[in-house]
Amino acid sequence: MSTTHHQTATTAAPAQLGIGARFSLHPHCDDFVRVILDALEEAAAGGRTDGLVLQTDEVSTYVGALEAPAEQRLTDYLAGVVAAASRHSGGGHVVAHVLLSRGCPGERTCDLTVTGLPSPEPVVVEPTGVPAVAQWSLYPLLDGGPDGGDHMVPIEAAIAAAQKRGTADGAAHYATRLTGEVAEVLATAVDAWAAVGAHVPHVVSHLTVSVGSPSLRADR
Amino acid sequence: MSTTHHQTATTAAPAQLGIGARFSLHPHCDDFVRVILDALEEAAAGGRTDGLVLQTDEVSTYVGALEAPAEQRLTDYLAGVVAAASRHSGGGHVVAHVLLSRGCPGERTCDLTVTGLPSPEPVVVEPTGVPAVAQWSLYPLLDGGPDGGDHMVPIEAAIAAAQKRGTADGAAHYATRLTGEVAEVLATAVDAWAAVGAHVPHVVSHLTVSVGSPSLRADR
Repeated sequence: MSTTHHQTATTAAPAQLGIGARFSLHPHCDDFVRVILDALEEAAAGGRTDGLVLQTDEVSTYVGALEAPAEQRLTDYLAGVVAAASRHSGGGHVVAHVLLSRGCPGERTCDLTVTGLPSPEPVVVEPTGVPAVAQWSLYPLLDGGPDGGDHMVPIEAAIAAAQKRGTADGAAHYATRLTGEVAEVLATAVDAWAAVGAHVPHVVSHLTVSVGSPSLRADR
Repeated sequence: MSTTHHQTATTAAPAQLGIGARFSLHPHCDDFVRVILDALEEAAAGGRTDGLVLQTDEVSTYVGALEAPAEQRLTDYLAGVVAAASRHSGGGHVVAHVLLSRGCPGERTCDLTVTGLPSPEPVVVEPTGVPAVAQWSLYPLLDGGPDGGDHMVPIEAAIAAAQKRGTADGAAHYATRLTGEVAEVLATAVDAWAAVGAHVPHVVSHLTVSVGSPSLRADR
């Protein structure tokens, strides 16, 4: 599994790397089915799904990035769908759970043999107007080998970057608290995940993103 | 980070290892606040939180296991709280997102120096009567060193065990589908996470557990 990813100038394509996400939307209201379907439909309109493949099942929606810039496409789509769910619920409480993954393109097995891990640019976000609070975790799935150092080093670097950005505003057991505009919160996680992915083939990140929460409103 | 965990007969205590969970409950109904509070209150009654420490914030609830049997206590509590939320929502659609973690006791840093990783017995579950479908991921945070092999090996062994148990019934990108009684689904993930934890100090698992889903009902 320790790939020789600094040897070649050829950069692996997003589809080869299995760059993508899985997310679920949880509108806390009686007409949650309408809110979810309307949000998925709105996010699918206007070219936001170009270069992505989507597949919704009974638990969540898979979003595979087929074309570069993969991270930008994923962030735009995810921020769009969460903001749309917020609007379609009338600003009610909606939680999204997001899993970001790269480096394990198979469904069950991880037969990554690509070389040339990409070093993507940070994503550029357009504000959605929806404030969010999130809990975020990052998992560099290091193995042995020359790059197989301490997995906490890239995690701590990612948290430091998020603090500098202004979105990380607290630590909790097993997660870092992020607050801000929902697109900015998602971009924080995406940029960290992509930055680790420039050195570690298989990297996963999870976020629980909350908008319109009664607790959040009480804080303001 | 490569601990020398086969050298001693002294087994680290759950609190030393940071064995615990973080979960969020998402009742898809207008009175979600009442459902969540009632479920937390019911699960806290009857001794189910003995040996656990609970802390609810605006996004999720942290459950730390202070005393053995840590895995049994966590499973009983988590199954209890999800089943209670299902009942308090009148059998409506409730999703729980669960993060299981061990081996990183700090809030932000991972200064695990313990030796003697425990090899817990599989948990024993009492049926709750609530069927569930889940998507499950397991992350052994291997580093270099003598045990720093291929992180996919323990993942594949865990999936094979879940298939044998009968809960794993399909693969999806980035996750394995589990179905069954909610306690059995949770126990599948807990047992896998604990089994990997007997060899790898830092192991995390995430599950999105869905009960009462309209899609699930349509399948039956």
